[in-house]
Amino acid sequence: MGLMNRSWRLVARPEGPFKPTDFSWSEQPLPDLAEGQVLVRQIYLSLDPTSRGWANPTPTYLPPIPLGSVMRGFGLGVVEQSRDPALRPGDFVQGMLGWQTHAVTGADTLTRMDRDPGVPLDAYLAVLGHIGATAYFGLLEIGQPHPNETLVVSGAAGAVGSLVGQIGKIIGCRVVGVAGSDDKCRWLTEDLGFDVALNYKRGPVLSGLRRLCPSGIDVHFENVGGDVLDAALAFINLRARIVLCGLISQYNELIPPPGPRFLGNILIRRARMEGFIVLDYQHRFAEALGPLARWMAEGRLRYRTQLVEGLEQAPVAVNQLFSGANTGKLLVRVSEDPGTSQ
Amino acid sequence: MGLMNRSWRLVARPEGPFKPTDFSWSEQPLPDLAEGQVLVRQIYLSLDPTSRGWANPTPTYLPPIPLGSVMRGFGLGVVEQSRDPALRPGDFVQGMLGWQTHAVTGADTLTRMDRDPGVPLDAYLAVLGHIGATAYFGLLEIGQPHPNETLVVSGAAGAVGSLVGQIGKIIGCRVVGVAGSDDKCRWLTEDLGFDVALNYKRGPVLSGLRRLCPSGIDVHFENVGGDVLDAALAFINLRARIVLCGLISQYNELIPPPGPRFLGNILIRRARMEGFIVLDYQHRFAEALGPLARWMAEGRLRYRTQLVEGLEQAPVAVNQLFSGANTGKLLVRVSEDPGTSQ
Repeated sequence: MGLMNRSWRLVARPEGPFKPTDFSWSEQPLPDLAEGQVLVRQIYLSLDPTSRGWANPTPTYLPPIPLGSVMRGFGLGVVEQSRDPALRPGDFVQGMLGWQTHAVTGADTLTRMDRDPGVPLDAYLAVLGHIGATAYFGLLEIGQPHPNETLVVSGAAGAVGSLVGQIGKIIGCRVVGVAGSDDKCRWLTEDLGFDVALNYKRGPVLSGLRRLCPSGIDVHFENVGGDVLDAALAFINLRARIVLCGLISQYNELIPPPGPRFLGNILIRRARMEGFIVLDYQHRFAEALGPLARWMAEGRLRYRTQLVEGLEQAPVAVNQLFSGANTGKLLVRVSEDPGTSQ
Repeated sequence: MGLMNRSWRLVARPEGPFKPTDFSWSEQPLPDLAEGQVLVRQIYLSLDPTSRGWANPTPTYLPPIPLGSVMRGFGLGVVEQSRDPALRPGDFVQGMLGWQTHAVTGADTLTRMDRDPGVPLDAYLAVLGHIGATAYFGLLEIGQPHPNETLVVSGAAGAVGSLVGQIGKIIGCRVVGVAGSDDKCRWLTEDLGFDVALNYKRGPVLSGLRRLCPSGIDVHFENVGGDVLDAALAFINLRARIVLCGLISQYNELIPPPGPRFLGNILIRRARMEGFIVLDYQHRFAEALGPLARWMAEGRLRYRTQLVEGLEQAPVAVNQLFSGANTGKLLVRVSEDPGTSQ
């Protein structure tokens, strides 16, 4: 008998948050490789808020995940077999590996990683991959920050937000983070160098943000939506830029909640609100990964990962993203890192 | 005794719609001209929705109108006396003349009009001035429409909206107008060449817009806000552009109402929503007025003005803008057009 693949399949459309019963555990023999395919053993599976939208019956920026198929997810693994000259056994790769221990997929759907032995493997998902690219292109291309401008980041202790704020500091912005606990806020200001942080659960966001942004807001990087976005719009400056990168507070809502009240400020302050999906920048990832790696090596870009042990935990662990339980990048350790042979 | 100026002064901050008691009628002798000043007799006063925001105690894109001063307003008039070499008696000018019969103001605050005897004088306010420039730059610069794209215009039977839709047709868009009566809708499709029009008072806007925009929406030009904006966001296409030019439905609200529910579509469809104020384009008005005049001469750009007789009517007439009573450009005839001597 061949190697067995274990996977979580999406078997029901979630109503509200993911429930364990929306998934079904499956163990199946791996198919033989076709020409151009590789077998990847997954090491880290990335849990990302956007996956909640993929599970809906309506398309987002990707088609809905068909019921009965392996749950979609981004991950990092090592090639074990290859029938494509572009990848060899032992190569490390990233891509849409799915919620499974092994993926058999076209080599052309994967990105080979030049693994630097000095960089922990989890950093490739937390910084040097889709998350880092999201922060980098979302902030720099859509947000267009300039030195001395005020940058507000919501979901600031999350995987993307924590990088956005640090890149903002590198650019020379005054950076205000909004997060959901005092611990998270301390992490932002004491470890990551944010200028100030607001715990939005400690009082009205509107007055909190007014206090922390005495010169108004030039760039608002939105990961959450709801009250924080509303309050940010109340204080935007002339020609402010609002990066809509995530609206995590509403991904579990059956009916989208009402939007921000202070939309009129976008008009009178000639601001721009723009949606951003990192997949549009996939052909430019190298542009981001160079500076991100350099900043990390220089100690100017820090990250934190929160590890969940074992693929079995994924359906429960994914809801940490929505409850505010995680800080930094949420990853599932699916199998052991074989290390580098160099 | 010198010439008397009659004016409406703003004496109270309106709560909700303008009330006649928010204004006070005043008759005062005109001051002597200082060097660089001119005396203008106003012919047409433009009533514009944006004036409601100017009356609030908080700044919009202009400072609040100080209580006790003449109500701010855009108008067209004829120079009667001049102490500036740039303007001569008999010259026609546009500018912030205010709600008054005569304005004594710096010549440098006014724009001299090259009056074409073949063009009715009211067209200079309805098309060949700030309204035309709003439609032109708002649609072309912010909306970036392309041939065969679907353009939706709210407040489509208003001064700006009616021009936006027609410019959209000239560009080659499929144009959908949203207006508040069957009469207005007929005007849009039968006289102005809109492809279709939706009377938003006849049923749910969401299903109406879905029916009229089978290929989705590429450019949404917003003058109104509220349900129409919400519904438009439900159907935006990838990389749609939303021009926030007006939010007339909320100018009379004391507290801004909740915003659009379908904000998430801005994210997943990577759309851009951008605020627009025509004053930012004042140095480029000539760019717009050339094409607008040509299109008007070619019969491709039509307009309608609704004339209110006498400055005395202004405080009551201004609310027509918010009740949906007017079609096209609302103007007050303050004094008679002396005609051209050529």
